[in-house]
Parts: sequence; C-alpha cells; structure tokens
Amino acid sequence: MDAAEESLRKSLAEKQSAVEAQGNAVRGLKASGASKLEIDSAIKALNGLKLDKTTIEKQLQSVISGGGGDSSISKETFRQSVGNTLERRLFYIPSFKIYRGVAGLYDYGPPGCAVKSNVLGFWRQHFVLEENMLEVDCPCVTPEIVLKASGHVEKFTDLMVKDEKTGTCYRADHLLKDFCNEKLQKDLSLTPEKAAELKHVLALLDDLSAEELGAKIKEYGITAPDTKSPLSDPYPFNLMFQTSIGPSGLSAGYMRPETAQGIFVNFKDLYYYNGNKLPFAAAQIGQAFRNEISPRQGLLRVREFTLAEIEHFVDPEDKSHPKYSEVANLEFLMFPRDEQMSGQSAKRIRLGEAVSRGIVNNETLGYFIGRVYLFLTRLGIDKDRLRFRQHLANEMAHYAADCWDAEIESSYGWIECVGIADRSAYDLRAHSDKSGVPLVAHEKFSEPREVEKLVIAPVKKELGLAFKGNQKKVLEALEAMNEKEALDMKAALESKGEVDFFVCTLEKNVSIKQNMVAISKEKQKEHQRVFTPSVIEPSFGIGRIIYCLYEHSFYTRPSKDGDEQLNVFRFPPLVAPIKCTVFPLVQNQQYEEVAKIISKSLTANGISHKIDITGTSIGKRYARTDELGVPFAITVDSTSDVTIRERDSKDQVRIPVTEAAAVVKGVTDGLTTWEDVWSSFPHHT
Amino acid sequence: MDAAEESLRKSLAEKQSAVEAQGNAVRGLKASGASKLEIDSAIKALNGLKLDKTTIEKQLQSVISGGGGDSSISKETFRQSVGNTLERRLFYIPSFKIYRGVAGLYDYGPPGCAVKSNVLGFWRQHFVLEENMLEVDCPCVTPEIVLKASGHVEKFTDLMVKDEKTGTCYRADHLLKDFCNEKLQKDLSLTPEKAAELKHVLALLDDLSAEELGAKIKEYGITAPDTKSPLSDPYPFNLMFQTSIGPSGLSAGYMRPETAQGIFVNFKDLYYYNGNKLPFAAAQIGQAFRNEISPRQGLLRVREFTLAEIEHFVDPEDKSHPKYSEVANLEFLMFPRDEQMSGQSAKRIRLGEAVSRGIVNNETLGYFIGRVYLFLTRLGIDKDRLRFRQHLANEMAHYAADCWDAEIESSYGWIECVGIADRSAYDLRAHSDKSGVPLVAHEKFSEPREVEKLVIAPVKKELGLAFKGNQKKVLEALEAMNEKEALDMKAALESKGEVDFFVCTLEKNVSIKQNMVAISKEKQKEHQRVFTPSVIEPSFGIGRIIYCLYEHSFYTRPSKDGDEQLNVFRFPPLVAPIKCTVFPLVQNQQYEEVAKIISKSLTANGISHKIDITGTSIGKRYARTDELGVPFAITVDSTSDVTIRERDSKDQVRIPVTEAAAVVKGVTDGLTTWEDVWSSFPHHT
Repeated sequence: MDAAEESLRKSLAEKQSAVEAQGNAVRGLKASGASKLEIDSAIKALNGLKLDKTTIEKQLQSVISGGGGDSSISKETFRQSVGNTLERRLFYIPSFKIYRGVAGLYDYGPPGCAVKSNVLGFWRQHFVLEENMLEVDCPCVTPEIVLKASGHVEKFTDLMVKDEKTGTCYRADHLLKDFCNEKLQKDLSLTPEKAAELKHVLALLDDLSAEELGAKIKEYGITAPDTKSPLSDPYPFNLMFQTSIGPSGLSAGYMRPETAQGIFVNFKDLYYYNGNKLPFAAAQIGQAFRNEISPRQGLLRVREFTLAEIEHFVDPEDKSHPKYSEVANLEFLMFPRDEQMSGQSAKRIRLGEAVSRGIVNNETLGYFIGRVYLFLTRLGIDKDRLRFRQHLANEMAHYAADCWDAEIESSYGWIECVGIADRSAYDLRAHSDKSGVPLVAHEKFSEPREVEKLVIAPVKKELGLAFKGNQKKVLEALEAMNEKEALDMKAALESKGEVDFFVCTLEKNVSIKQNMVAISKEKQKEHQRVFTPSVIEPSFGIGRIIYCLYEHSFYTRPSKDGDEQLNVFRFPPLVAPIKCTVFPLVQNQQYEEVAKIISKSLTANGISHKIDITGTSIGKRYARTDELGVPFAITVDSTSDVTIRERDSKDQVRIPVTEAAAVVKGVTDGLTTWEDVWSSFPHHT
Repeated sequence: MDAAEESLRKSLAEKQSAVEAQGNAVRGLKASGASKLEIDSAIKALNGLKLDKTTIEKQLQSVISGGGGDSSISKETFRQSVGNTLERRLFYIPSFKIYRGVAGLYDYGPPGCAVKSNVLGFWRQHFVLEENMLEVDCPCVTPEIVLKASGHVEKFTDLMVKDEKTGTCYRADHLLKDFCNEKLQKDLSLTPEKAAELKHVLALLDDLSAEELGAKIKEYGITAPDTKSPLSDPYPFNLMFQTSIGPSGLSAGYMRPETAQGIFVNFKDLYYYNGNKLPFAAAQIGQAFRNEISPRQGLLRVREFTLAEIEHFVDPEDKSHPKYSEVANLEFLMFPRDEQMSGQSAKRIRLGEAVSRGIVNNETLGYFIGRVYLFLTRLGIDKDRLRFRQHLANEMAHYAADCWDAEIESSYGWIECVGIADRSAYDLRAHSDKSGVPLVAHEKFSEPREVEKLVIAPVKKELGLAFKGNQKKVLEALEAMNEKEALDMKAALESKGEVDFFVCTLEKNVSIKQNMVAISKEKQKEHQRVFTPSVIEPSFGIGRIIYCLYEHSFYTRPSKDGDEQLNVFRFPPLVAPIKCTVFPLVQNQQYEEVAKIISKSLTANGISHKIDITGTSIGKRYARTDELGVPFAITVDSTSDVTIRERDSKDQVRIPVTEAAAVVKGVTDGLTTWEDVWSSFPHHT
C-alpha cells in the first residue's frame, strides 16, 4: 500500500477515536453539571477534531482516486467523448445492432476498417518485409488435438460464478476485484489493516485457485451485482468457442484462441523453406476468438479480434541478433520486475543498457522490444504513455525465459497491447510429443566433434540367471542411471566386485555383480547437434492498439466563432482512414471539373480520398473531415491553383492543380513531410 | 446429349446386334454341315463386323472423354504437376499436417500468403478505392437470429446419406453424380436411351428433392463407395459450423457462411454515412465457413475460405450506372441462358450489346460484369478460359432479377469463381421484417407530388347496430378491399343503396347499406418516396480465383542442357509473391555488399525480394525462383552495373546499381513495362 494512503488511514482512525473520546467527555461534563464555559470549551475542541477528521478524509479521498480529485470523472468524460465521435462517424458499430447486438462483438465501419487496413499494411512493411519473415495464413477452425497439445483445452479457462436464481454468469475474479476496489475507494472508515488486506487480495487475484476465490467471495458476502442473489462456487469455464468438424459430430474443433499454433505445427516445413537455417521468423495476421464470460471495457475486451503474431525461432545457445545495434540506443519507459516489486514506477532506460545489465534476458528479445517501440510510436502512440512492463515471476509461464508487455495508457488504465515473450522450446516440444513428429533444428559441425559418452551395457544372460522374472526391471533401472550413479557403481564393482542397487520399480535392493554390467566412457564422433529451437513471440492485439491510438489522437478545439468544441483526430497520414478531401469552394461546374481531375489522379496514385460537392460552408466541411482525422484538404477555388490545408496547424499553401495529387501522395507515403511542402509552396492566408 | 455421341451409341448397338446375328449364322452353317468355303467366308464377315465395333467403341470413348482421347489423363497429369510444385514450394500446406490434417482445411504458406495478399490489395484498389466503396469488417461469429432472417438456418443444407454400417457420411448428389458419370464414361454398352436418362439425371441433380435422390440411389443400387454397404435415405445437413455465444450455453451462434449479412444489417448506418444517397456500395473481405460433408477437389472446395463481397445498393427504378460506358465496349465469352438451353456453347459478345439486347438485366449488373472481367484478366487469368455464365431459371433464387457467374476453366472443369447477382430487395426486406427496423431509402421530391389515394371510411356506429358481435370482422373486410372492389361497391351503393358483400372471416354474405361506409378518392401531397433498395452483389471466392490463377500461370520448359523440365509460374509482377531476387554471381564480399545495398533500397521501396548468397550455380538459382514465379532477378557481377533478367523471355539488361531498385519498383507498380526497360537499357547476352 502507498505510504501516504497508509499514514492517512492511520491518522483517520486515530482522529475518529479522538472524536469519540471527546464526544464522551462532552457528554460526561454535561451529566456532571459542569460549567457552561467548561462545556463550551470541550465542544469547541470536539468541533476542531471533527474538522481535522474531514480534512484527513478529503486528503485520503484524493490520494485514493489518484491525485487530482476529479481525474476519474474527467477520464470518464474524455472516454465518452471519444466513444461518441467514434460511433457517430462509424469507426465502429456494435455488431448486429438492429437485433440489439451481441456483447463483445463490434464491426469496423468504413473509417475504422481503413485505419485497421493501414495499421496492418504498416505492420507487414515494418516486420514481415523488413525482416524477411515467412508469412503464413492458417484456418481459424482447429481440431481438438492441436489445442490439447498446446494446453488450451485443459487450461484456457476463467473462473465463473452463477447467480443461483437467474443463472446469469460472472467472472469470479471480476466480482472480487470490483468489491475490493469499491471498498477501498468509497469506505473511508476502513482500518489500515483491512485496506492492506484488500490490496493484497487485488495483487494476488490472478493466482487465486477456485477454492480460494470461492472462500473470499463467501467471506466478504459478495452477491450477484444485478439481483443480490447468492452466487455459486467458482468453476472453470473454457474460453474457446467449440464446434464440430464434419458431418458426423464426432470430431471436436475450436475456433483458434490465437494464431501461433498454426505456425508451430508448420515448423518443419518452414525450417526447410528457409534452407534449414536458423534464426528465422514466421508471422501470421488473422482472427482469434475468446468466448469471454461477460465482456466489459468496450473495444478492449471482445470475443473476436485480429491478432498479428511473430514466432522467431532461434538457437537457444545463441540469442544474439544481427540488427540489435540498430535499436540499442533507443531510450523509453521500461518497468522491470524489481521496480514493480519495490513499489517504484516505470523509468526511462536505454534498451542497450537493459540488455547488458541482464534486465532484458537476451539481444533478440531486446531487438523486438525496440522494433515494437518504433512500430507503435510511428503509428501515433504517445511515447510518454507507452511503457514496457516485465512480467513478474508469478505471471509468467514456468517455461518462459522472460516476458515483456507493451502497455499503453488509456482512460481504462494501462492496457496490454503487445506481448513479447521468450517461450523457450515449450511449444515445439509440446507438438513434437503429441504428434510424434520431431520439430527440431540441426547444426552441422564444420568438422566432426569428439565427445565422451557414457555407455552402460547390461549383460542380459547373467541378469536373467540372477533375477528371472525381474530381469527386465533391473535392466531398465541400470540403463536409467545418470553419469554419477554409473561411475560410482563402476568404481564399487571394480573394488568390491559386488554392490547393492535399489530398483525402484521393485521397491527393493538387489545385488549387482561385476559380470552383470559393463560401464565405460567412450569417445564418439558427432557430425551435428540436434536441438529444439527457442521461440521468441511478439504478439499484437491489433484492435487494442487501434483503440488506444484513437484515444491518443483525439483532441478538441474551439470552432472559429468559439461557440462549440470541434473534435479532431491527429492521425499521422500513414494511419488516416482517408488521406485527403477535395472541395470545390463554391458549387460551380468549372471547379467541380477540376475536383474530378484531381480525384482521378489521386485514385490512380492509390490515395483514398473523398470529394465533397455539397454546398455546405467550408468551415463545416473542414470540421467534418477533421473529425475523421483526414490530414489534408484540397479546396478548389480556381482552375489553375488550389489550396491545400493541413489538419492540425490549419496552415494552407497554394499548389498548381497538376501537382496536387503528387504532393499529397508524397506526404502520405512518408517520402516528404508537411514541413517540406510548407517551405516549397507559397502560403495562403 | 451430344449428337455425335448419340449416333455412335446407336451405331454401336446396331453393330452389336449385327455381330450377334452373324455369330448365330456361323454356328448355323457349322451345324448344317455347310462347306468350308461358306463357313470361312461367314467367319470373315463376322471378324469384319467385330473390327467395325471396336472402331466405333474407340470413337465413342474419345467423344465421351472430350475430344483428344488422352485429354482426361493429361489434365490429371497437369493438375498433379501444378499441385506438386505448389505443395513443394509451400504455396499451400494441408493444415495441421503433423496431426494428419483435416479434410478441406489448407494453410497458405509464405508464397501463397503473399499471392493472396497481393490479390486482395489489387481488389481493394480496383473496387473499393476506384468506386469509393464503404468497406466494413464484421465478426465471423454470428448470432442465430441473423441467419434465421437470411434463411441460412433453414435452407443452407446439403443432402447427406450415411453408410449404414460404418456411419461414414457422403453427399447424396455426389454419389449419384459419380455413378452417372462413371456409367457414361466406362460402360460403352449403354443404350442411347439409358445414356440420355443418365444425362438427364445429371442435368437435374441440383433440383432433386431428398425423396427423388433417395429413389434414384435405390433404383441404381448405389452403395457406399468404400465399403459397398447399403446407404441411409438422404436427409438435410446444415453446412454452418455451429457454436454457442457466451457462457450460458443458451445463445446459439454460427460461423458466418458468407460476409454479406454483416453488410445488410448495417444498411441503415451506411446509408446515413453516405449522406442518405443512393446508389452506394459497401464491401467486405473476410473469412467464411462451410462445414462441407466430404470436401473434394483440393483447394476448390474447402471448409474455410476468404470471400470478398460487394453489396451495391441501388434504386430499383433506376439501375443505370454513371461509369457504364467505360466497360460497354469490352467483348468476352458470355454464356447466356438461351445458348445453354439450346445446347450451344459460350460465345464472344460485346457487353454493351448484351445489356442493350436485354440478355444482361441492367446497366449496373453489366458494369460489374465488365469490372470483374478486367479484375480477373489483369490478375493473369487467361481470357480464353474465362466465361460469364448466366444462371438458368431453376438455378436462381425466386427473388433474383438476374445472375451471372464468372467461371474459370481449370483441370477440374469450369469453376464458379465470382457470382454477380441482382438480388432485388430480398435481403433488406428479410432483415426489416425480422428486426422490425425499417431498412429503406428515401427519395425526396424537389416539390411535393399530388397523388390520388383511395379512402375507405367505415361508419362504426351503423356497423355496430347492424352486425353486433360481427362488427369488427365486417369492418376489417371493408378496409381490406382493393381499389377495384371498393369502387365497384361505391357505384353499387350509389345506384342501389345496398349491396351484398362476402366477409371471408364470417364465411357468408352480409348486406352493406349506404350509411355504413364512405368510399372516396382523395388527392394527397407526398414529399418523398420510401422504398427498399435493390442490391447487386458481386461475390468473389478468393481461394478459387488464386487456384485457377496457379493453373493458368504454370508451364514447363526444358533446362539448358535439356535433361529435365523446369517449372515456371508466369505471374504478372502485381501478383508475384516475391518481385525480385538478388544474387551475387560468385561468393565474394564486394558483390555481397552491393547485393545488400540493393536489398536495402528494395525494402525501403516496399518491394518484397530475396537475397540468395548460397554458392549454387546461377542456373539452379534461376530455376528455383522461376518456380516461385519471381519475375525479375538481379545478378551482381560488378560494383557499378548489374544484370536484370526477366523470367519468361529470359532477356537480360545492364543497369547501374543505383537505378536497380527503382527500375524493379516501376515495373512492379505497373508504372512502366518490361518492354520499356528493354528499350531503355543495354542488352546483356
């Protein structure tokens, strides 16, 4: 718990006791018929104590709600104002709205769809093309065996409780979390001990078993939020959408919960395609599905979403990266495990330092963290509201070597948008084991290497004579000895000729004689090393990135006459759903012709744009397109030159009609900047 | 039936009779002890007849298998050779191969994924951008009510039969089709009548009810192909993958079988987004799912596939298209309904003529047919193996105004790859009815129009006095009269004061008097017309188009020393998965540096490429990239100039290192052609 909060809660409790004591004192004075002067003075002291208490309550309230007392309210207002604009301009639409929708399902409307397509296009350029990744495209429908091997059938669950009267389902941890947060924020009379306990529960939330969660829910008397009915015990609910493949109904299948498995099962072919060389990365963009128990947080927790995933396969003994130096000097907010545990906050660290100090496990992981930083900030994510948070030991799967989340701050708090994990050899081994197909890599030695190998050679005949029916179990136990055990036995047999040996399958000691087993160390030549590659997995939740981008890009500014606030999205041209609008200044056939010529040229250049020939005032037309985040507007007010206006600065330049499309294309493709344009063409006022 | 086939079957039957008769004659001569000379001459005649019969059999065999006697074999060989190359080079991979795969599910491997991405990119440029369509992106998971409204829950079925012993499922129509085809192709002794019957069954296959299919299967004694066990009666199997949305298990959902419904349910918002103006088109690219009973035909019939669909909403009273003239002069293979019915073949027709002669229902439908033709041929589909086939009356849904399929010829025959249908107002009406939300458009009149409207005003009081408890039924019957009935009654009441009127809910006549109802025609002012738009839907099966493109692009040519056949895909640069390879001629640090500089420049220009610095011979490296359809190869053999080779002509030019990337980009983006390059730079031999 925050030190300030703890001390305030303590003072508040003390002040409360003081108020009570002074109250008793006043009542005592009155009962004993003390003088008016005495009583008045005691009441004055009581009122002073009450005032102090109120002051402390206010301070505590402010600390709890995170500094500025109104910040949670203003976050809510901001979110609503972004959300209203997004929904009104069809960036997204609740799916199947005319049928009253389905929780957790959203459509991308025209501008949202264009933003998504731009983000994915840039992802392909930034990762797949730049790193020569092998992109694949696998189906969403997945047979059960694949997801059994990956562990999803058994473990991809959330704990659920049911309203015992209505049957409505809730996520058990969400109810407990809401209860604790509400108590902490609204109940100022909590003792510091109770507050610490609730905070401890919140910290442990992800680690609680069904039994522990159930016990807490009972202990705190938590009931169903809508009906106040009692709740069932928590039980696991698998989050995969289940279906059946083929007409027989006998082949269970699921809609994939991630795209990664499609890559792992293809490792062998992809390795071959890459000339049997490591490292290489495969990538996949596609839909993933999670049947959330009760989706909340709007566009951030949905039941179907687009993932973009990279699986970078690397030799576990060499996790260096050839292009690491290109990102080593980047400096940004990182939040290592130690800083989290000791209650500090994220701080700016140079990536190269984080790797060399071992905070980030290896160069390849560091390289991807750097590339993800560049990707997100180029899209328009505010670098001061982006941090890389390392997983705590209890968050990480047992096999993972290290794991960092790119978290983006939004009105909902810090949101995990990209996970970057070193998953070691876990996934390939799991599929090797289940399928029986070895998913391994080979390192051919330039010349054979001599290695010493332990050889244990039991003599079957002697073992048979000595142990009859138990022969096989003794033999297996001998072969299963590790190097130390075997060498100890060798020494004992050589000195004493006989040794007691515990065979665990027989649960007893047997006596091994020298003629029963030959133990030696032999030199052998090896031509290659066979190993399971490690995989480093950057996994991008595209919808979450886009939602955070909306929040980071949104601002309002007063209209010209100052009587209303206008909405603007400051999307970079790369991301903007429409790059340019074309308006004839007035309705006039000549200007409309020019607008059409420019439009044709924009289309030929692949620039998405919109002609607006409605007679609406130019100010209204600008406001409309600012709200869609359109970076440039071309106003046609002559047949030779036109005006191009930049959205955020509202600066305008004059450009010949024939050059208009090329100028917009240049800035949109990132070949030039608006500053270049501003310095090359006459300004317009 | 083909005339040649019919006449050959007839001749064969006659010749068979003649052989039998002559055989009898020979036996008769022998029995009657005729002279050796007589007998020998009869045997000679018999052998002649047998020879004739064999000749006719051969001719028939050739006609049945479609002209060249070996063509079906060579098609099979061709298909295998394309398929082997595609699978070996990972254009596609049977999904979940290490678990022995799932029928009807395929992955796109790296080059396949790149081809798909290029095809979709061009689709967006050619349709969405060029026509300013509103692109949306809706979820695959769809609640039941939506697919009930669209009719899929009830009607999206295939008829299935089960092996009664093993339970294996088959598509009933496929078994009947296979039986008929096999009989027709292999049983030369079929009578012309029987052959005609089987062909008739094949033609009717899509129209047969479950009962009719079952009867035919019984009549022909068709059994399970694998076990020869008896088969169950056919019954409908719904092809949608079913699932359950949310944790309660009470909300049924399906994986969408098409993307179109997501657009229809959003009509109202999209119409508003378009400024309440018609026509406009919405578009969607996404996965669709069909749980095929027993998928066959490799990549052509799969359980999950990418669709790209357009819904063009238009005023049913005005289906003209402003850009129609841009395609009206295209001329290509069309196969109208009449030509199909009269047994003719597809023929080249100018699109404008097809529309003006009413073969194609309207301009907008014609416009899209033309745009689809341009799309497919620019991708590399052979225009001589592409035809537009009109649906026959029995193929088309009852509500459809007209429907054409773009069919591409492949080794599997003519494959439906794009459907272009005028679906009238059906879909919007269905969702309006089910949801209660009006999905309509408005045409505001520039000035109000005066319309005459029939007004029927029953007088409740008089009806109550006369009919007591039946009053309501009489009143409803009066109000339900159509214009003619009402005006007849008005005339009768005016002349006779009373009239007999049949009330069907009462099942009897009642007597209506003049004071019981006032009937008049009144003039009213209308300010707008409210109507349900028609929708014209071009729907693209992206996987099928890509597979046909593979077949049309594939060829083989002898290696330099002529000892083997090398595979080539002649993809246009637009489609090619990798645009360019860069080889240092020999392993040499200087050349490798140059290769890296060129590679960097290609990456910056967004051109996908591959560096090959293995020491393999240049010929082998060319062969490898030809097999991936890479159009250009840059060989680095100096530090100043390099050689660029074009894949199909094998022509080479010398180009300065500094210009190499720009030249490749120009040709790839379609700004220049190889011919331009060939004429601008020195040739290399």
